[in-house]
Amino acid sequence: PRHIDWSPLMAEKGGYKHFMLKEIHEQPRAVRDTIAGRLLESEGDVYLEGLNFNDCQLAAVKRIIIIACGTSWHAALVGKFYLEGHCRIPVEVDIASEFRYRNPVIDESTMVMVISQSGETADTLAALREAKARGAMNMAICNVVDSSIARESAGVIYTHAGPEIGVASTKAFVTQLTALYLFTIRMGRSIGTIDLAAGQSMIAALKHVPALLEEVLTLNSLTEKIARKYMNARDFLYLGRGKNFPIALEGALKLKEISYIHAEGYAAGEMKHGPIALIDEEVPVVMLVPRSSNFDKTLSNMEEVSARGGRVIALCTTGAEDIAGRVEDFIEIPSLCEDLDPLLLSVPLQLLAYHVAVLKGTDVDQPRNLAKSVTVE
Amino acid sequence: PRHIDWSPLMAEKGGYKHFMLKEIHEQPRAVRDTIAGRLLESEGDVYLEGLNFNDCQLAAVKRIIIIACGTSWHAALVGKFYLEGHCRIPVEVDIASEFRYRNPVIDESTMVMVISQSGETADTLAALREAKARGAMNMAICNVVDSSIARESAGVIYTHAGPEIGVASTKAFVTQLTALYLFTIRMGRSIGTIDLAAGQSMIAALKHVPALLEEVLTLNSLTEKIARKYMNARDFLYLGRGKNFPIALEGALKLKEISYIHAEGYAAGEMKHGPIALIDEEVPVVMLVPRSSNFDKTLSNMEEVSARGGRVIALCTTGAEDIAGRVEDFIEIPSLCEDLDPLLLSVPLQLLAYHVAVLKGTDVDQPRNLAKSVTVE
Repeated sequence: PRHIDWSPLMAEKGGYKHFMLKEIHEQPRAVRDTIAGRLLESEGDVYLEGLNFNDCQLAAVKRIIIIACGTSWHAALVGKFYLEGHCRIPVEVDIASEFRYRNPVIDESTMVMVISQSGETADTLAALREAKARGAMNMAICNVVDSSIARESAGVIYTHAGPEIGVASTKAFVTQLTALYLFTIRMGRSIGTIDLAAGQSMIAALKHVPALLEEVLTLNSLTEKIARKYMNARDFLYLGRGKNFPIALEGALKLKEISYIHAEGYAAGEMKHGPIALIDEEVPVVMLVPRSSNFDKTLSNMEEVSARGGRVIALCTTGAEDIAGRVEDFIEIPSLCEDLDPLLLSVPLQLLAYHVAVLKGTDVDQPRNLAKSVTVE
Repeated sequence: PRHIDWSPLMAEKGGYKHFMLKEIHEQPRAVRDTIAGRLLESEGDVYLEGLNFNDCQLAAVKRIIIIACGTSWHAALVGKFYLEGHCRIPVEVDIASEFRYRNPVIDESTMVMVISQSGETADTLAALREAKARGAMNMAICNVVDSSIARESAGVIYTHAGPEIGVASTKAFVTQLTALYLFTIRMGRSIGTIDLAAGQSMIAALKHVPALLEEVLTLNSLTEKIARKYMNARDFLYLGRGKNFPIALEGALKLKEISYIHAEGYAAGEMKHGPIALIDEEVPVVMLVPRSSNFDKTLSNMEEVSARGGRVIALCTTGAEDIAGRVEDFIEIPSLCEDLDPLLLSVPLQLLAYHVAVLKGTDVDQPRNLAKSVTVE
């Protein structure tokens, strides 16, 4: 009889070697579920069932503070671009463990939004309570239904990523970005900064995300090849600008968490103010250079890296083929729009970190020293 | 005849081996010059000759955005604490190269403050112009008189650090913090959030800084000893909370710039959300644990690091002797107050970076790839 290598755990992993890889591949479904039933296409608006703030209440919001930790904090940094760009409301982003002890400036026209996959992150929960005690409007973006943060927030937008088991967050992150985009549409429609046509076009773009994520996932074997080439590097830099600066931070965090390589993310324009000193032929530099309004600036940062011997791994969107010959490695993803390209760009970075970790033989789903939900302060 | 080893360059360095070491030692004088002639002690206020905003104009400020690059950005992050804490005005801090392309939310009640040692930093100058074009009130903190940024700003507070030659900024940084504190006093007195007694006590504290900086400089040989011990480490982490989180970032930047060691600064509370995975017995962790309101929290972060084999170098203020036995290395500095301890804590971090670089034999005053003023974008 043939020996069948089967275990309940393998079944749970749906045939994937690790939960993380399974969860990376679930992202198209996760985003689809997060937008399902929420799009009001003809109205160019969205319906967010647990938001609990009407147009009049949203119109009273004069300032937004988004608070989170780790990966969720990176999502918050992208959210600042969405909300300031489309709603013209000043947005401040803070780390939960910092916010709590800052004696922050808050009043009843401040909306405090907390983001947490588990809804149990201790510092984030404490920050929410602090904000409520100071009279702020408050809401949460959470993945776990009925978690402490979801229960204690006046409004909640659930991400429908499904259970996330891998310690390194992947599908929760892209659904957090999706939820932030949905909230931006709602806010902008409500206060009039997004008109019907703009709302409709934002929704149309969002609907393309799941299929494009499927397409990006076909980069799996290319990222594995690249991982094999750089797996022994001691240090990595990740550089991006604008909405892709937080994606660079997130890419670096993934690699750090599961491969224990010292990866650091930087705003590409800041490189000249210090980190460029680190660059030599041993440091791979992952550059996010989608075709966007600051394409040329990022390109010139890329050339500074190359000029100093740095090995550039460029992530570009379609239409940047000319870069391919000027860098050591080149990953091309389909282009959607500046707002949503960050979701697509996240995936190859997740895969790169995953493959490096697997090749190095670390415990991908349960990296050393880390817990899935940080429920202590 | 005895050979005398003398050169004009050595004379310029005032007997120090490097400009950086000379500039580190000039900090007491630099701070003294930055406050000289500006303190109105009996009024609990300060006089800032080039500020050009009267009480009525300052009262119109509803939001402050501080924009800078590199080390100046770290000063800005401390400034946020000063201004929010004492003036209760929301402060946003942004990286100049990011701000420019953000389509920022700004109006005529927004004060945009730019910080630049040289006053010629290209991204910062462009950000200032962008802010002016959008109608913001604007001012600068600069070291170089009559520089482009100083000339183009409506108001300017000069730091009187004197010429800074070493590429790694030291005395400019502590004088930037001093200028931010002076502006905070002026702002708070002007809008009434700082009363006479509070203003007087802030001024009294500030007057102690130069003498305490002298005292901290006696740590030179201790930091050299510590540098010798860790000089071959490949990676360093720097952790702090609150006002000392930016100081951790700055300490890491110094080491990175001149020794090419991959040092990274983190908010201590964020460590559990990723970077803790990096920690093993090869990674020295510099922890800023002054006696402050979040002393206990930082202490518990320190214990998490120790529990995972991390080698802790603790920087404490007087009264934390009990920590000494629980860490591998211990540096004690005199305590002044939570607002101004960051200035004192900066010095041992500068010295540590300096000695590591000297021991490694790198070009301390002119590190590879870096320019003193980044006048390209």
